[in-house]
Amino acid sequence: MVDETGPSCASSVLTIDLGALKRNYRLISSHAGTSECAAVVKADGYGLGIGPMLNALRDAGCATFFVATLDEAIALRTLQQGPVIYYLNGLMPGEADICRTHSIRPTLNDPGQIERWAEYCATGREALPAAVHIDTGMSRLGLTPHETAALAAAPDQLQKFDFALLLSHLACGDTPDHPMNAQQRDSFAGAAEALPPTTRSLAASSGVFLGPAWHFDMVRAGVSLYGVSPQPGRPNPMEQVIHLQGKIVQTRDVDTPQTVGYGAAHRFEGPTKVATVAAGYADGYPRSLGDQGVAYIGNRAAPVIGRVSMDLITLDISSAPDAKPGEMVDLIGPHNDLDSVAESAGTIGYELLTRLGHRYRRCYIETTA
Amino acid sequence: MVDETGPSCASSVLTIDLGALKRNYRLISSHAGTSECAAVVKADGYGLGIGPMLNALRDAGCATFFVATLDEAIALRTLQQGPVIYYLNGLMPGEADICRTHSIRPTLNDPGQIERWAEYCATGREALPAAVHIDTGMSRLGLTPHETAALAAAPDQLQKFDFALLLSHLACGDTPDHPMNAQQRDSFAGAAEALPPTTRSLAASSGVFLGPAWHFDMVRAGVSLYGVSPQPGRPNPMEQVIHLQGKIVQTRDVDTPQTVGYGAAHRFEGPTKVATVAAGYADGYPRSLGDQGVAYIGNRAAPVIGRVSMDLITLDISSAPDAKPGEMVDLIGPHNDLDSVAESAGTIGYELLTRLGHRYRRCYIETTA
Repeated sequence: MVDETGPSCASSVLTIDLGALKRNYRLISSHAGTSECAAVVKADGYGLGIGPMLNALRDAGCATFFVATLDEAIALRTLQQGPVIYYLNGLMPGEADICRTHSIRPTLNDPGQIERWAEYCATGREALPAAVHIDTGMSRLGLTPHETAALAAAPDQLQKFDFALLLSHLACGDTPDHPMNAQQRDSFAGAAEALPPTTRSLAASSGVFLGPAWHFDMVRAGVSLYGVSPQPGRPNPMEQVIHLQGKIVQTRDVDTPQTVGYGAAHRFEGPTKVATVAAGYADGYPRSLGDQGVAYIGNRAAPVIGRVSMDLITLDISSAPDAKPGEMVDLIGPHNDLDSVAESAGTIGYELLTRLGHRYRRCYIETTA
Repeated sequence: MVDETGPSCASSVLTIDLGALKRNYRLISSHAGTSECAAVVKADGYGLGIGPMLNALRDAGCATFFVATLDEAIALRTLQQGPVIYYLNGLMPGEADICRTHSIRPTLNDPGQIERWAEYCATGREALPAAVHIDTGMSRLGLTPHETAALAAAPDQLQKFDFALLLSHLACGDTPDHPMNAQQRDSFAGAAEALPPTTRSLAASSGVFLGPAWHFDMVRAGVSLYGVSPQPGRPNPMEQVIHLQGKIVQTRDVDTPQTVGYGAAHRFEGPTKVATVAAGYADGYPRSLGDQGVAYIGNRAAPVIGRVSMDLITLDISSAPDAKPGEMVDLIGPHNDLDSVAESAGTIGYELLTRLGHRYRRCYIETTA
């Protein structure tokens, strides 16, 4: 972004409400009761900027942060020395030294990683902290049930380092009635019982709302901090954090017979007022919203017509015929929130959020409740 | 990206071949014959980094560049003083002064924008260059046929500035047999005839391959520079520019009955070797590739199983059971090129390219033919 051109020259604006983020953190934290509420800030703070997310969540009381990769962990540590930082993707060869240097805690996802960390700590005579991840049903990362049982039977490697956290991940946490939730909770509780005592963490955002039996000692609030509903299909208790606006760059009156956009994909049935807006799939407004998405001008709906282009969309603004070039339309806003736009695009709020482009002006605001 | 951790610690690597980019430019340029070949580098060089794209294309002989927004134009000008730079989204109020300061050429998309630029130039007694965009069938940006006819009848505003370029855009250029291509060509030629003489540009990447009748004085090479086929369904004459690799972070043997991933979406039919790879939809590997995508380990196919997560995918590596954590798999590579992966994801190469994430290590190489 270039500072010289003021916001009035921005093609599109992504407004991020740090006040809403903090209130979402506090809401999840209050649901978690006495369990610590950590925050997940991977993928550049779910696309919203790691620095502002970190600062706001620290202000809200968060002390422990999770990211996916070692690169992300280093970037986070560079911003602040205080917080506890875990990275989830596992300790690869050569990474132990970097973890020690930056006070970063790796997640150990298999017996080889446990051995690697244990040997590193034994050699340095320093019991450094790490998490152990056990798989209770995702089959993605973490020790298998067999490996977990073996570790419980011979936990000597765990004595060589600071076994600071035992974690697992729910596969169906956003589906409260799914039988896997209780199965995974019981597997996790059983494994924790068999292993040396430590802090236990199973629930991410959705898991928090399954109830206290899933909270254990720490919950890891993630996507719901940023406004995504933890339980799709039920009322969303989270505040919206983002507001995405695109600028109208041209309006026109279209008469039949006429087509619009690539592939001449949309044919008008009658006279229509059309606005072209400066946002497209390169900005993370998914191409799958062609002839599906709905923008809003105030409270008036303006459906996307034709295909989404790389940098532009065209809207039917017949409901708001006075809209002029230079005015902003809501691409994600009060009448079309993140989850509903994602659903129209055939995806989930998580993907829409993390794929927001970098061409928007980003405005960080802080509303009060 | 943090320099401290070498490439061996990168979770995933995006390799961009500047040699292939240059050869693609020269190929399109040679097809364009005596017409000038400009380059489109909007959306951060189609996601590949504006700086390296600019330098490589300049090396290959390109002198004129197009971007979408004024912000992008300023960023481009900051990198190099030499090239001619146009931005396509139109001259909004307040932008004329910025254009003059940075030697940026606006595209004038409606009569109001033409008047704005003409008055600005008249006031400053300086005939600054700009493009005029006429709509010949996209109904997205540009003067309507009626507005174009009015301008041709009373072209006095065009005398007040340097009318440097007349442009239009094909709606169906990637479909050689579509009747709109000839209609738009004829409309464009007719309008150019009626307006004062200037450089004429109609064809983008696909249009170049429609043949000399679409070339006029300048072509605007865009997505095909970066490897996307200009004519889907026909042999792709372009070289692949990107190679996307993800790192295996864990492997495991799975026995029935077992599920993998969120929603327990994939159930194994029999014993399977599974690898978890550090790339997900936050990295621009679309969620729609769940149970659809195919990665490659060398020349052995490894299908995506279950859902694509934010940071991870799981692959069936039964065809390459010796693959180990730390090894790289091809997410987009010689056996699964950009267009084919996009097709599996239900989209087009353009979208896949421009939505590549920013968590990859980016390696710029330059191969020789």
